[in-house]
Amino acid sequence: MKLYDAGWAPSPRRVRIFLAEKAIQVERVAIDLRTGEQLGEAYLARVPRGVVPALELDDGEIITESAAICRFFEVLHPDPPLFGVRPVEIARVESWVRRIDAEGYAAGVYAFRNGHAAFAGKALPGHWPAIAQIPELVERARVMWRGFVAALDRQLETEEWVAGDRYSYADIVALTTIDFAERAKLPLPDDAVHLARWRAAVTARPSADA
Amino acid sequence: MKLYDAGWAPSPRRVRIFLAEKAIQVERVAIDLRTGEQLGEAYLARVPRGVVPALELDDGEIITESAAICRFFEVLHPDPPLFGVRPVEIARVESWVRRIDAEGYAAGVYAFRNGHAAFAGKALPGHWPAIAQIPELVERARVMWRGFVAALDRQLETEEWVAGDRYSYADIVALTTIDFAERAKLPLPDDAVHLARWRAAVTARPSADA
Repeated sequence: MKLYDAGWAPSPRRVRIFLAEKAIQVERVAIDLRTGEQLGEAYLARVPRGVVPALELDDGEIITESAAICRFFEVLHPDPPLFGVRPVEIARVESWVRRIDAEGYAAGVYAFRNGHAAFAGKALPGHWPAIAQIPELVERARVMWRGFVAALDRQLETEEWVAGDRYSYADIVALTTIDFAERAKLPLPDDAVHLARWRAAVTARPSADA
Repeated sequence: MKLYDAGWAPSPRRVRIFLAEKAIQVERVAIDLRTGEQLGEAYLARVPRGVVPALELDDGEIITESAAICRFFEVLHPDPPLFGVRPVEIARVESWVRRIDAEGYAAGVYAFRNGHAAFAGKALPGHWPAIAQIPELVERARVMWRGFVAALDRQLETEEWVAGDRYSYADIVALTTIDFAERAKLPLPDDAVHLARWRAAVTARPSADA
């Protein structure tokens, strides 16, 4: 088994943090996103979508999507549980992960990919024909980010962790999204005090450096 | 327990098909999207996000996101399994669901919400400040749709169902996405013969009418 990984990007970081929380060791192959290695012939021959992370199983099957890779390991190594245990916990984790992705992470990608000349023609991650940048998406991202951050701050006013009283994959997705969005010029506002408390706690876990 | 439901939209349809496949009965409350009931005071008091579907538990807790609602019922009613059983099946279902959402469903929403005057200022579903339409997203949607459909057609050339040899939640997400995208003027191309074979098979299941 091999994990195709990349140092900086938010999605591979989700998987690294997840594995660190469970103390799982997996062979890693570094893909250099700065030189576009994920869209080079060799990588596309293995991973036609041109996305990182990707997990290659021993029979050669490729699993893409950080959530899919993490769910694979959750079944093999259930402790500590990171996708919830009771039905309502499982639902809360999935609900928050999807909300973070659709509102917060999407805003980060909009701002990052549509606002930098480096991504001209590459406004979507992965292997696509030319995708033109749309500068208006940067403004839409700002509106989405404000709404998302306010909602997450309210949630963390009453809950210790994003999906309730237990650290979960939702915290991993929220942390990687917030750190990424900051680099896309979508910072946390100063008045998001509950988010700031939570962010300090997740960042202090050793897994955050994975 | 109550399920807030809406007749036409793709996300509530996912949940209805899922429940029908498992023969689960849940009390349903119809929300009228045509009159904007989901953004009215009464609904927002229960579901602040203003999204449908939403599941209200007996203690009043609200679960949003169709995938979260379906995972809740998957744990309570595991048969037939619709999120996979073996670790690799679980990963395949999640991977395809996320790809369908990020590529196909996102394209449908872009085309639908940014191309109709009816959605002026409401370019995102749910309770947001005014979100301006971006006509360029309709063109981006066409590029995404072509790539997505071609990839799914290739998958169905060798697999009976979207995530392999078993009908799953990935088929539900693909069907509701394709039917929705068609209404957003993103049809299946005539040469997608494997998709056409699969679409006939999923549409013939009684659950498709749920």
